[in-house]
Amino acid sequence: MKPIPSFSAFARLFALGALLAFGTQAFAQTDPLPSWNDGPAKQSIVAFVKETTDQASPKFVPPEARIATFDQDGTLWVSHPMYTQVMYCLERVPALVKAKPELAKVEPFKTVLSGNREAMAKLSMKDLEKILAATLTGMTVDEFNAEVKKWLETAKDPRWKRPYTELTYQPMQEVLKYLRENGYKTYIVTGGGQDFVRVYSEQVYGIPPEQVVGSAGGTKYGYAKDGRPMLTKEPKLLLNDNDAGKPEGIHLMIGRRPYAAFGNSTGDRQMLEYTKAGDGARLSMLVLHDDAEREYAYGPAQGLPDTRVGTFTQALYDEAKKDGWFVISMKNDWKRIFAFEQ
Amino acid sequence: MKPIPSFSAFARLFALGALLAFGTQAFAQTDPLPSWNDGPAKQSIVAFVKETTDQASPKFVPPEARIATFDQDGTLWVSHPMYTQVMYCLERVPALVKAKPELAKVEPFKTVLSGNREAMAKLSMKDLEKILAATLTGMTVDEFNAEVKKWLETAKDPRWKRPYTELTYQPMQEVLKYLRENGYKTYIVTGGGQDFVRVYSEQVYGIPPEQVVGSAGGTKYGYAKDGRPMLTKEPKLLLNDNDAGKPEGIHLMIGRRPYAAFGNSTGDRQMLEYTKAGDGARLSMLVLHDDAEREYAYGPAQGLPDTRVGTFTQALYDEAKKDGWFVISMKNDWKRIFAFEQ
Repeated sequence: MKPIPSFSAFARLFALGALLAFGTQAFAQTDPLPSWNDGPAKQSIVAFVKETTDQASPKFVPPEARIATFDQDGTLWVSHPMYTQVMYCLERVPALVKAKPELAKVEPFKTVLSGNREAMAKLSMKDLEKILAATLTGMTVDEFNAEVKKWLETAKDPRWKRPYTELTYQPMQEVLKYLRENGYKTYIVTGGGQDFVRVYSEQVYGIPPEQVVGSAGGTKYGYAKDGRPMLTKEPKLLLNDNDAGKPEGIHLMIGRRPYAAFGNSTGDRQMLEYTKAGDGARLSMLVLHDDAEREYAYGPAQGLPDTRVGTFTQALYDEAKKDGWFVISMKNDWKRIFAFEQ
Repeated sequence: MKPIPSFSAFARLFALGALLAFGTQAFAQTDPLPSWNDGPAKQSIVAFVKETTDQASPKFVPPEARIATFDQDGTLWVSHPMYTQVMYCLERVPALVKAKPELAKVEPFKTVLSGNREAMAKLSMKDLEKILAATLTGMTVDEFNAEVKKWLETAKDPRWKRPYTELTYQPMQEVLKYLRENGYKTYIVTGGGQDFVRVYSEQVYGIPPEQVVGSAGGTKYGYAKDGRPMLTKEPKLLLNDNDAGKPEGIHLMIGRRPYAAFGNSTGDRQMLEYTKAGDGARLSMLVLHDDAEREYAYGPAQGLPDTRVGTFTQALYDEAKKDGWFVISMKNDWKRIFAFEQ
């Protein structure tokens, strides 16, 4: 019997080793992208991660340089038929008019208050800008954060009858997580308002506010009546984070070129070009909305004209093919769209 | 002899336990700020870290909210008698004139080329702006990065005859490290050029480029002759990261209020006010340059007038005392100034 304790100690060590080996193996066999169908899109993501994180690879990227940028509207969550932030601005109008009753008789606020959706759809770009300026500026940054947070808790998408924050694409959530688990710092680079997205980015995407780059207005430092310092949101545009503004915004806010970038519209073109033009392995991808049943179909898949702003035009599709970007077909590449789907 | 293997296995386990315990204890007993003399400044830093990172503390700060911001010039490294970046711009003038010979006869370039330090000291703010615009803009961001990197490798401070990057304050390097080891994300928030500081921030301070907020010019996205996308630095100021520009820049680039902020001059006043005004434990600190022997003495310690821009005025000192900021005396609080000193 005497040798047993010793054998037992050895066995425990061995068991521990086996457990560790099994754990590693189990981990390696887990599919990091379970909501993706196997195909060139999924394969390109996995291949990119492998070749940039394997130290033996000639395209290895040191951890501190691993930056990946994601457009939000239409890339990470539903943005059709209207941007969520525009919904916020329209739905803020009643509260705004309550605080400033003189606006009730002034256009475009009068039309928004009427609730007449047909008339609202006809509002001009200039009208919309007036509504955005009135609902996104003039308050302190703390007040704005609190208002957006409160709205998000109750507002619902008209089609799915769910909070907007549940309408993120599960396959893209998996890409965010997969990249982060491989040392990538994930950023949102959105044409939407930086302050708006920062309110929920951590909770919804696991992306902290400081990793959100977006269209940004200026703030003004001042003091409240009690002497406390405060920052007030000003109607002054500092960064229009669309088109060329995306790589310019990336340089301003991050200071280095991404290794991977994801978009879905002409507003993302320059970000994808800039990313792909770097040395070594670079991944540029476009989400194509071609799934009318499970989400929406718009852009070239629907034969829409090339001139629509913010859509996936034929010219963009052609550039993607020519420059080696990958196109993600929602219909073919995604097993499911939302986390709430089984 | 038989029990020995078993005992030996047990002993190994025990030894491992002891080693772990000893390691923990040794770590706990290591002074995180060895270049600081014991006193209110050092104690305030240690107390702040303890009360914001101890889960049982009523002032506990969750890890994701732990943001600390540091001015650079005069707070993290020597900025006297001239900002390092201004030295860079002046020393770039010969190369600039080589590329554009027509500038040789034009002021203020002519004066800078002459090397006459007395005449250079008399250059107006407007002249200096011309030199800054000519040496900091007009090239691609990649060209600029390469130029600054090359300059830093050979340029030396005239007093210490050492690279500027060695003239960082060792006690502040320890604060950066100590905060990071306790889950804080450390940022530089500098009145200097964001692109300039980003070139060396990772190597010199362990702070990645994306955690540098500074005065920033715009860039313009375009294409080189070979079709490759490029970003060109433009003579257009987007953010003047001084005074009120510091909290405004923090909101733009980080999006939340810091828990700790460090500065040394009137340009840091609003950042320190804004930080200190937050809820819970907040630490605002000012470095006082009162050590003429080991570094420099300027500001109220020298009885200089309050009106000097970018210095530690009497008014700033009074606000610090009134609002509960801590003043760091280089002379009394720092055991040594630089890492190269024994």
